[in-house]
Amino acid sequence: MASFTDDTAAIAAQQIDIDETISRLGSKKGVESVTVLTKDGRVIRTTATPEHSEVQGKLLSRLVRDAAEIVEELESQDELSFLRIRTKRHEIMLALDHNYLLVIVQSPQKE
Amino acid sequence: MASFTDDTAAIAAQQIDIDETISRLGSKKGVESVTVLTKDGRVIRTTATPEHSEVQGKLLSRLVRDAAEIVEELESQDELSFLRIRTKRHEIMLALDHNYLLVIVQSPQKE
Repeated sequence: MASFTDDTAAIAAQQIDIDETISRLGSKKGVESVTVLTKDGRVIRTTATPEHSEVQGKLLSRLVRDAAEIVEELESQDELSFLRIRTKRHEIMLALDHNYLLVIVQSPQKE
Repeated sequence: MASFTDDTAAIAAQQIDIDETISRLGSKKGVESVTVLTKDGRVIRTTATPEHSEVQGKLLSRLVRDAAEIVEELESQDELSFLRIRTKRHEIMLALDHNYLLVIVQSPQKE
């Protein structure tokens, strides 16, 4: 069984990992914001304003849930992994893993 | 005002245009199916089976409507133009214009 110290170190390492990833992605040219959400849309980390990221989290996590359901309805063995939304003003990339949802908003004009 | 002949010719030209586009896209490597839908999910043309394209049309047009609503909720002046869904088995590309929805399903393994 892992000791208290091991667990704490593992959690700390994971947090540093998340922070580093967000900082690295957020510094890329054209990236407007980077947000990490739980699957149900709760904001864990964001480079956007808290207000915007909360709305974004709620709406985009709902869309991802709908898309995941549709993908499985179309083919039962299939599974959603990535969603890319191109709008007139932005490009929103949504990457899924088992527990989290990574949201990257890019401005295509700035690329 | 356009004459009956002009209108008929315009419609015929448009149909040839749609057929040519579908045939061109459908012949590309890795493309599994190409479908043209009305915005409410009615199948106009497809290279898939009628059964599959009907289910696909219903589900994907609903997803596009949801995504379009979310994009406008996030920023009132913004508008959805393209949606790309990456799954374990396929890549589904959804291009929107004012009246139609173009659905291209690709198999990434075959690329």
